[in-house]
Amino acid sequence: MEVLCIGTELLLGNIVNGNARWLAERLAALGLPHHRQEVVGDNRERLIGALRAAAGRCRVLITTGGLGPTPDDLTTEAVAAAFGAPLQEHSEVWADIQTKLSGRGRPIAASCRRQALLPRGATLLPNSTGTAPGLIWSPDPQALAFPLQPGFTVITFPGVPSEMRAMWSATAEPWLRAAGLAEGVFASRMLHFWGVGEASLAEQVSDLLALANPTVAPYAGAGEVKLRLTARAADAQAASALLDPLEAELRARTGRCCFGLDEDSLASVVLAVLRRRGDSLAVAESCTGGGLGAALAAVPGASDVFLGGVIAYANAVKRDLLGVPAELLERHGAVSDPVARAMAEGVRQRTGSTWALAITGVAGPGGGTAAKPVGLVHIALAGPPGCVSEPVQFGASRGRGWIQTLAIGEALNRLRLAL
Amino acid sequence: MEVLCIGTELLLGNIVNGNARWLAERLAALGLPHHRQEVVGDNRERLIGALRAAAGRCRVLITTGGLGPTPDDLTTEAVAAAFGAPLQEHSEVWADIQTKLSGRGRPIAASCRRQALLPRGATLLPNSTGTAPGLIWSPDPQALAFPLQPGFTVITFPGVPSEMRAMWSATAEPWLRAAGLAEGVFASRMLHFWGVGEASLAEQVSDLLALANPTVAPYAGAGEVKLRLTARAADAQAASALLDPLEAELRARTGRCCFGLDEDSLASVVLAVLRRRGDSLAVAESCTGGGLGAALAAVPGASDVFLGGVIAYANAVKRDLLGVPAELLERHGAVSDPVARAMAEGVRQRTGSTWALAITGVAGPGGGTAAKPVGLVHIALAGPPGCVSEPVQFGASRGRGWIQTLAIGEALNRLRLAL
Repeated sequence: MEVLCIGTELLLGNIVNGNARWLAERLAALGLPHHRQEVVGDNRERLIGALRAAAGRCRVLITTGGLGPTPDDLTTEAVAAAFGAPLQEHSEVWADIQTKLSGRGRPIAASCRRQALLPRGATLLPNSTGTAPGLIWSPDPQALAFPLQPGFTVITFPGVPSEMRAMWSATAEPWLRAAGLAEGVFASRMLHFWGVGEASLAEQVSDLLALANPTVAPYAGAGEVKLRLTARAADAQAASALLDPLEAELRARTGRCCFGLDEDSLASVVLAVLRRRGDSLAVAESCTGGGLGAALAAVPGASDVFLGGVIAYANAVKRDLLGVPAELLERHGAVSDPVARAMAEGVRQRTGSTWALAITGVAGPGGGTAAKPVGLVHIALAGPPGCVSEPVQFGASRGRGWIQTLAIGEALNRLRLAL
Repeated sequence: MEVLCIGTELLLGNIVNGNARWLAERLAALGLPHHRQEVVGDNRERLIGALRAAAGRCRVLITTGGLGPTPDDLTTEAVAAAFGAPLQEHSEVWADIQTKLSGRGRPIAASCRRQALLPRGATLLPNSTGTAPGLIWSPDPQALAFPLQPGFTVITFPGVPSEMRAMWSATAEPWLRAAGLAEGVFASRMLHFWGVGEASLAEQVSDLLALANPTVAPYAGAGEVKLRLTARAADAQAASALLDPLEAELRARTGRCCFGLDEDSLASVVLAVLRRRGDSLAVAESCTGGGLGAALAAVPGASDVFLGGVIAYANAVKRDLLGVPAELLERHGAVSDPVARAMAEGVRQRTGSTWALAITGVAGPGGGTAAKPVGLVHIALAGPPGCVSEPVQFGASRGRGWIQTLAIGEALNRLRLAL
């Protein structure tokens, strides 16, 4: 099993190779050992060389990138050339491309038609979200003058991460299982934590990090920390039987820091609890500029609970749209507990929401002072029990985006803990 | 020139390969073409195989990882074995390791002594911030039974990013320049486009995509398309002289679709124009839930121009905080031009902003109807010339996040074109 990522942008360092990491995680989850990753640029000869060399080493080669409509998208053509088959147009693919592109109301470039070509004998790997399909193909070794691993199969994916991921789950993973390559199952669960550092969490569970099956591995995100639990077993039920007690033990040790499982986000967890209670939520945001609302609106079905709110970036908006008294702004400054409380209470009253969150802080890089340094954020929560505000200091070192992201997570987490 | 990253954690997808990206950027900036990246795990035989294969292909191989004290750190030993030289202890390295570790107040594990071993004939690459030194070595081809590229040199770095970066700048880069490998410079510019597809843009500039120096390459993002211009020249000034006319030609051909250069975003460009004019901006967001405000607030210094606005997710908020007449909401529905216009005018009036953008649409996955399908978004712009609203259909296939992202970009782009 090998992964070959194709794209000059990777060799120029324009982007980090997130696709290689994502595929590596998925292969590990399937219990498929994967021994090598390679990156080559958009260069036909080097690509052909890499494809042939991989075919001599591995049973399955997964490629990403180079499936688009432009002249530097060379993967399909190089695969056909490497393994000696002519390209054939698939009319149903061209029809699908035309349907998708006309639905977006754009003229269809003639070059898009290239994406309907596949080497003779290859099977289409459909792309439901984009226009560039992939392929699954076991070239005929009889026709070739160089050695292939028995059963060698190449599977191609586009480089656009969302498209690659959707295709992997819909088609490639079932194919690997049907081909008998992914025997048994690897089952994973991801536990999400807020309010604890990666090192502290790892210490709390250090004995469990040494387990062989199931395994536990920590990951750090932006403010969030995660633990991945993975079990290998004959079937899904047996894997669950390994994971259930481990998850229970981890939850018991970590208490309320653990906020969710798998696809949960702080926003989705908070919205789900509010929905069960029949409560609603509004926001008032200064330094996050709408990011808290956007995090809530990212969750499908948020409109049951999330009413909206006010982006009170300028002080005049805090005063006019939220009713924050000018006197409070003058006396305490916009970044203060009294103003945060007035923002939360103001938006709660004006929207009639059950709960309201307010954020006001110094996101930087400018605007910091000795008393109110960059990274200082005041977060207020207003609700039936009253209104509380507390400051939090995130530090300036990681920059504006980091401070905004942490403030949004911290606000959601305070509401979660209050519910 | 090739890069070989060593570490099973990369093959398991535990971490993203940030070292490969960082090295790729540095090599590009030095004008060193780099044709391949590889990743192998902590496996002695596969590592030796990868080292020997690379030695047959490239003049310089840069490795990262596997220099630490633990049993799975195999790089130095594998390099010695691959190219047939015994390991020798360097007493000054062992003394340095002891000094560093005792300075940190830690007991010194016996295994740390392995880090003082280098293949006979190799030159030390000092590690000023950590304990694992690297090496620079041109193995003797006479002693080997397989072919090496003339002058083949391997340079090893630890996998810890901060150590690798410090060593690169302090030692490897000067060595590459002294060896005459890093002649001249590569300079890059990125042009950003909105409102044109990748394929159409590539067709408009197809003759330029075939250039050898400078080069042009297209990239697709979320709604945005980019062209990277890269020139190789003796110095930065000569590179600019190659890039200037190319950039001018690209801008002339693509007209107003081209919105920015390098680190520009639609939000930063719009904010800069508004700042120059002394204008201000407010937003009223329904289906994007604050994402437009967050995109503006992501730009440092946005507060000069961006006042804030209203997240009018619920209809009651559209009515109460923006003054959208209930009758309009009933007659046309929330996703309509009249409501978008009333939102934009409402927020403009309430905040006193020069300009206001409003977004209301069906982000899905639920809530679509035949008349108002998922992906339909109405965007209104209010300003001194009046208020206009137009719908746009993004399609449902790529999901909620995509529709929200495109709606935000489209809104900013309409304001950009109006200015």
